[in-house]
Amino acid sequence: MTRTILFAAGPGLWAEYETPLRTALDGQDVRLTTEAAPEDVDYIVYAPKSHLQDFSPYTNLKAVLNLWAGVEGIVGNPTLTAPLVRMVDEEGLTQGMVEWVTGHVLRHHLGMDAHIVNPDHVWDNRAPPLASDRIVAVLGLGALGAACATSLADLGFHVRGWSRSQKGLPRVSCRAGDEGLGAALDGAEIVVLLLPDTSQTREVINETTLSRLAPGAVVINPGRGPLIDDDALLAALDDGRLSHATLDVFRTEPLPADHPFWAHPRVTVTPHIASETRVSSAARAIADNIARAEAGQPLKGRVDRAAGY
Amino acid sequence: MTRTILFAAGPGLWAEYETPLRTALDGQDVRLTTEAAPEDVDYIVYAPKSHLQDFSPYTNLKAVLNLWAGVEGIVGNPTLTAPLVRMVDEEGLTQGMVEWVTGHVLRHHLGMDAHIVNPDHVWDNRAPPLASDRIVAVLGLGALGAACATSLADLGFHVRGWSRSQKGLPRVSCRAGDEGLGAALDGAEIVVLLLPDTSQTREVINETTLSRLAPGAVVINPGRGPLIDDDALLAALDDGRLSHATLDVFRTEPLPADHPFWAHPRVTVTPHIASETRVSSAARAIADNIARAEAGQPLKGRVDRAAGY
Repeated sequence: MTRTILFAAGPGLWAEYETPLRTALDGQDVRLTTEAAPEDVDYIVYAPKSHLQDFSPYTNLKAVLNLWAGVEGIVGNPTLTAPLVRMVDEEGLTQGMVEWVTGHVLRHHLGMDAHIVNPDHVWDNRAPPLASDRIVAVLGLGALGAACATSLADLGFHVRGWSRSQKGLPRVSCRAGDEGLGAALDGAEIVVLLLPDTSQTREVINETTLSRLAPGAVVINPGRGPLIDDDALLAALDDGRLSHATLDVFRTEPLPADHPFWAHPRVTVTPHIASETRVSSAARAIADNIARAEAGQPLKGRVDRAAGY
Repeated sequence: MTRTILFAAGPGLWAEYETPLRTALDGQDVRLTTEAAPEDVDYIVYAPKSHLQDFSPYTNLKAVLNLWAGVEGIVGNPTLTAPLVRMVDEEGLTQGMVEWVTGHVLRHHLGMDAHIVNPDHVWDNRAPPLASDRIVAVLGLGALGAACATSLADLGFHVRGWSRSQKGLPRVSCRAGDEGLGAALDGAEIVVLLLPDTSQTREVINETTLSRLAPGAVVINPGRGPLIDDDALLAALDDGRLSHATLDVFRTEPLPADHPFWAHPRVTVTPHIASETRVSSAARAIADNIARAEAGQPLKGRVDRAAGY
């Protein structure tokens, strides 16, 4: 029996999600629409700012599938009695991070910027060292850090990993704890920050830890803004101890227009895009959850309404 | 017994190679020097422009190890009777190409240039698609092309390969021959050229083949300059059919100062660095050959003096 999926996340998102959703749902017996009689609707694809706030006419609703991980704007809605699922886009979040980190590590490793911006048309054909001669330290070995460290090791980089508690990863030299941090950073040319923001990790990149890096090292932060002491970073960039910082996360986002990172010649700002829910993988996650519901399997990311998340 | 290695490739190269050679030779019972009595010398590390042209005083010479692959400047020297070996730096050539290609594919995939050069400080946090939603065509599946296609597939890209004769590679959709070329290019967003320069491959990128690519595609050429019809490429860049070309090889190198590629806003010129002998891996190749000679094993890259290469 054909199931009706109501896309109620708004017209802007419909333009973005229609084709990926239709592609992801291909093969399932469903009708995807932005208009339907409430009693005909089996599933609702939702975003918290939707005009749809009264779920009571949707008497045959099997689930509400939220496009985002955050459900604050819907979890307390008293008219919603059907199961609610948050977006769980492991593919997009982890894979996107691996691509961003691997890309920016290779960018700095290869010295691409000097070719991308080369107003004097300099032909300097000294090749960079091989990845195997380049020490990269990855701080944080959770799901994202471990995936990135592995990708860099696969490409041949000499990878060191660091985490609060000891981890083990093939081809990654893993250190842990306060005493392991210096050893992980000693002589590293590229540092990637993928730690959570906790009282123990805040400003892990500071004047002391920066002094352990190789001269002219690069700091790459796709983790959390407060991991870096911004003043210490800027001082190290200004006096040449660091050659560059590529930052995707900041204490305030969007990064304020007057923040010195914007205009600094040795800082690249990327707008918190390293790990984002992607339209295509989010569409696949929704299609997968509908298939699960139809097969009587548990939904991925089902929200505990009592707990609020 | 300690062996004496004379570095006779010149003072400029000594500055570059001394540390990598000492590192690579660590553990072998050798003395590496730029000055020695000729009769004490066991091995000579050589470059063809060296002041050393008369080998006759080197009566105990076991081998001459050339720093480059090319031996035109020494192979005909009548005073040299010891074995001559060319540089065979498989590690540097293949691995370097994989790093360069993977890096520039990720650069274009992630849209890095808009963040590296962002004078208006635009915060546009639309994330790029995932690699799995990006079709990359690799033309040429020899040692270099196959290694690059595999690296891109490892990162999750949707990779198509093309070669004159049919090849098979895991996770790469391989096509071959004239009829397979269009299918390999159809809708590709990134094209990587790793073909040899032959009468059959010359100008394989031309107005016809460019028309098969996705709108706004990117051409990346680390292969050979003549693979591209430069005028057709420039026309496609000018009218927006291509969004960028990143070129490492040219019909004339260094690229002439008046060539339109230099100043074109949609062209990145890299100075033939994608696949170069690297100092560190070249040093390892030399250390490896000396260890082979000492163990009575055949030398890698030994030159056939009669054939001249």
